[in-house]
Amino acid sequence: MADALKIGVAGLGTVGASVVQLLEKHAGQIERRTGRSLTVTAVSARNRTRDRGIDTSGFTWFDDPVTMAKEAELDIFVELIGGEDGPAEQSVRAALSRGVHVVTANKALIAKYGVDLARVAEENNACLNYEAAVAGGIPIVKTMRESLAGNEVSRVYGILNGTCNYILTRMEAEGISFEDCLADAQRLGYAEADPTFDIEGNDTAHKLAILTSLAFGTEIDADSIFMEGITSITTADIQAADELGFRIKLLGVAQRTDTGIEQRVHPTMVPKSSAIARIDGVLNAVAVDGDYVGEIVLVGPGAGGNATASSVVADITDIARGDQTPVLGMPATDLVPYERARMRLHEGGYYIRLSVYDRPGAFGEIARCMGDAGISLESIVQKRAAAEDRDRDSADAPQPVILITYETTEIAIKEALDVVMSKGVVAEQPQMIRIEKLK
Amino acid sequence: MADALKIGVAGLGTVGASVVQLLEKHAGQIERRTGRSLTVTAVSARNRTRDRGIDTSGFTWFDDPVTMAKEAELDIFVELIGGEDGPAEQSVRAALSRGVHVVTANKALIAKYGVDLARVAEENNACLNYEAAVAGGIPIVKTMRESLAGNEVSRVYGILNGTCNYILTRMEAEGISFEDCLADAQRLGYAEADPTFDIEGNDTAHKLAILTSLAFGTEIDADSIFMEGITSITTADIQAADELGFRIKLLGVAQRTDTGIEQRVHPTMVPKSSAIARIDGVLNAVAVDGDYVGEIVLVGPGAGGNATASSVVADITDIARGDQTPVLGMPATDLVPYERARMRLHEGGYYIRLSVYDRPGAFGEIARCMGDAGISLESIVQKRAAAEDRDRDSADAPQPVILITYETTEIAIKEALDVVMSKGVVAEQPQMIRIEKLK
Repeated sequence: MADALKIGVAGLGTVGASVVQLLEKHAGQIERRTGRSLTVTAVSARNRTRDRGIDTSGFTWFDDPVTMAKEAELDIFVELIGGEDGPAEQSVRAALSRGVHVVTANKALIAKYGVDLARVAEENNACLNYEAAVAGGIPIVKTMRESLAGNEVSRVYGILNGTCNYILTRMEAEGISFEDCLADAQRLGYAEADPTFDIEGNDTAHKLAILTSLAFGTEIDADSIFMEGITSITTADIQAADELGFRIKLLGVAQRTDTGIEQRVHPTMVPKSSAIARIDGVLNAVAVDGDYVGEIVLVGPGAGGNATASSVVADITDIARGDQTPVLGMPATDLVPYERARMRLHEGGYYIRLSVYDRPGAFGEIARCMGDAGISLESIVQKRAAAEDRDRDSADAPQPVILITYETTEIAIKEALDVVMSKGVVAEQPQMIRIEKLK
Repeated sequence: MADALKIGVAGLGTVGASVVQLLEKHAGQIERRTGRSLTVTAVSARNRTRDRGIDTSGFTWFDDPVTMAKEAELDIFVELIGGEDGPAEQSVRAALSRGVHVVTANKALIAKYGVDLARVAEENNACLNYEAAVAGGIPIVKTMRESLAGNEVSRVYGILNGTCNYILTRMEAEGISFEDCLADAQRLGYAEADPTFDIEGNDTAHKLAILTSLAFGTEIDADSIFMEGITSITTADIQAADELGFRIKLLGVAQRTDTGIEQRVHPTMVPKSSAIARIDGVLNAVAVDGDYVGEIVLVGPGAGGNATASSVVADITDIARGDQTPVLGMPATDLVPYERARMRLHEGGYYIRLSVYDRPGAFGEIARCMGDAGISLESIVQKRAAAEDRDRDSADAPQPVILITYETTEIAIKEALDVVMSKGVVAEQPQMIRIEKLK
C-alpha cells in the first residue's frame, strides 16, 4: 500500500463539509477501490467556529486558501470556494504550479480560465479534475473525456440549471406565472435571492462552455455563447406548447454546423416524446450525440451538497488510482480555437406567438409576410378568446395566434417578424421560441 | 510520444468490424486523447474471405484466437468471440496470464468467470475492461467502477435487454399479443431465431450479475439470480397496468436488504412517472441509487455494432492512457462472498390478476383470503366483460379481477394465492407481477 494521500479542502460550505464527511464515512471502501488511504490534512475557510457537522480539530487550518495552496504539504488541493477570480483562481493556479493535483467544482473558473489552467496543469504534470462543475452528481465530464473518446460528437445538449427547470415544471404543472414560481423557488431555497444568474442563462452557459470544449476539442469560449433566459416565458406559451405536443425547457446546446459550432442557451420547444422533455423539477440531464454510440442521456441531481460531493470524491479517487486524463480530453496545446457559428444562420423550426388585431385581412397579411420570407408554416393555431371575454372587449381586441414553422433560418424569422410588426397588425412584440430537433 | 499500442481483435462479426473501422476512422482524435497511436496488428476469425467492409490485408491473421492470445506480439487483446466457455475464455485467460491487457464485450464470460479472470488479471498487472458487456453503448461499468467510488449503493436496476423492451413497448402501443410482437421482432432482427435467452431473462441476468458485484463489492454470482421472463405477460396485464398508472418492464434489480442482497429479473410494474417507465423500444437504461449522489440514470443503445464498438474503444483508450482500474472496482481478493437474500422474503407491492367465477360470495372469499394472510389491498378493479360478451357466456363465466396490494412479502402473497386457488373461486392460475418502489 502506497502512502496516504494528503488532501486540502479550501471552502467549507455545504459541499466542502459533505466532502470531508464522505471521505471519512466511506474511507474503507475508498481505500479498497483506490489502493490508497486518503486523509484530509488541511482546510481553509473564513469562519473557524461555525458548526458544520464535521470535526475539524485534526486539520491544519489556513485562513487564506492561497497560502494553503502554496505552502501546505498536499497531494490534492480541493477548491470549493467559488467565483471565477480572486482566491479560487489564485489558489488553483498556485497549487497546479507546484505540481499539486486540483479538484474543483467551480464552473465559472473553468469556463473562464479552463484552457489556461489546463496548460499550467499539464506543464506541471498535475491533474485538474472538475466533474462537479457540470451537472453536479452526473458523471458527464468523465463520460465525455473518457467513455466517448472514440466518438465524433455532433451535438451535446442538456438541462443544466435546476432552478430554471423547477420553475418551468411548476409553471406547466400548476398553470402559475413565472413570477409566482420564482418567488416560490426562492422561498424553498431552489433559487437565489438574486436569481439573475440562473434565470438569464449565465449558469447554464458556463457549463455549456465546458461541454463544448470536451465535445469538439475546441478552446473554451464562454463569451461567444448566445443566451436568452426564461423570463419572457408565459403560461400561454407553455399551454400552447402542450397543445402542440411540446414542452418548454431551458437548454444549453452545442452543435457542429457547416459554418462553425453553435453554442446557445435559450428556452426551447422539445417534443414531448423526447427523453429531455421528461426531466422534471430540479433534475439535470445531458444528452450527447456521437457518431458511433448514437445518443446517450445522463440524468441526475445537478446540485446539492451530497450529490456534488459524490463527484468531487470521484475526481479525488481518479487521482488516487493514478488516472491522469488530459484536462479537456486532449492536451491543451492540441485544442483548436473555437469557431463560432453565427446565430443568424441557425437553422431550425420556430414557435411564434403573435397578438393579432382582430381585423379583416390581418391574418392574411401575416401569412403573406412569412411566405415572402420563404418560411413555410407547419401549423397555425388561432386561439380566440372565450365568447364572454370577447363581448367585453372592443371589436378589434388582439387575439393570440400561434405559428409553428418548418425548418428555416434565424435571420429569415427575424426579418419576417420585423415586416409583420411594420404592418400594424400585431399589438405587441412577438414571442419566438426555437424548436430543437430531437428523436 | 510513446510507441504505438498493438491491438489484436479476436472475432470479426458486426462489433469486431466496427471496432477496426472506428480505430482507423478516428485515429487522429484517439491519438490526441490518449497520447498513443493505436494500431490493429492482428485479427482472428474463422472466415478469411468474407466481406466485412474493412481492409484486413495489413493484419496478421490467426485462425485460432487462443494461438493469437498466446503468441502474437500484442499490448491489448480484444475478445469479441462470445460464449462463456471455449475459445473466448481460453484466449482471455491466455492473454491475461502473460500480462496482455484484455478488452471484452462478453457478458456471459464475465458473469461466469469474472472474479477468477480478475484475479488472473491482477496477478499479472493487466487490465480487464468490459464496458460493452453491460448495456452496450452506455458507460455504466465506468460510472460504477469510478464515478460512484465514493458512494454506498443501495440498489441498481435497469432495462438491460432491448428485445424484451421492444416487445413490451409494442404490446402496449399497439395492443398486440406477445406472440405476434415476438414474431415481428424476429422478422426485424431485434430477436434471435431462438429467443429463449432474451425473453426468459438470462441475458438480463448476466448483466445484472456484473452490476451487483460492482455495486456491492461482492463476488459475482449469476446462478443465484431469481429469474422470470416476459412470456406470461398479456395485453390484459398491460392494459390494466396502464389504467392503474403503471407500465410493465423487464427489470434486473439488485438491492441490499436486511437479510442479504436480492438479485432478481422479472416483469415489473413501474409507476408511469418514473424515469425507467419512459424508456421505449430497444433502448436500455440503468439507474443507480447511491447514498451521496442520490439516483442517477443512464440511457442509451444497449446493442448494435457501432454503439458496442464505442464502448470497446473507450476501454482501449483507458488502457492507452494508463488508467488501470481494479476489474470489479476493487481488487478481486477484497471482494466478499455474495450473500443471497431469499426471494420469499422479498418485500414489495404486488399486482394480481385473477380470473374469478361470477358467483355470489366469490369476491368476498378472495378478500378474506388476502386479509387472513395479512395483506392489505390498495385497489381492487373488477373488470366486467362488456354486456354483449357476457350474454354469450354462461352465467358464471370467469371475470378478471385485478388486485394491487400494499407492501407485503413474497411468501405471504404465494400462500394467500394458494389458499384462493383451493377455494375453487378462480378459474386459472393467478397472474402475479411485482411492483417496484420508485421515485
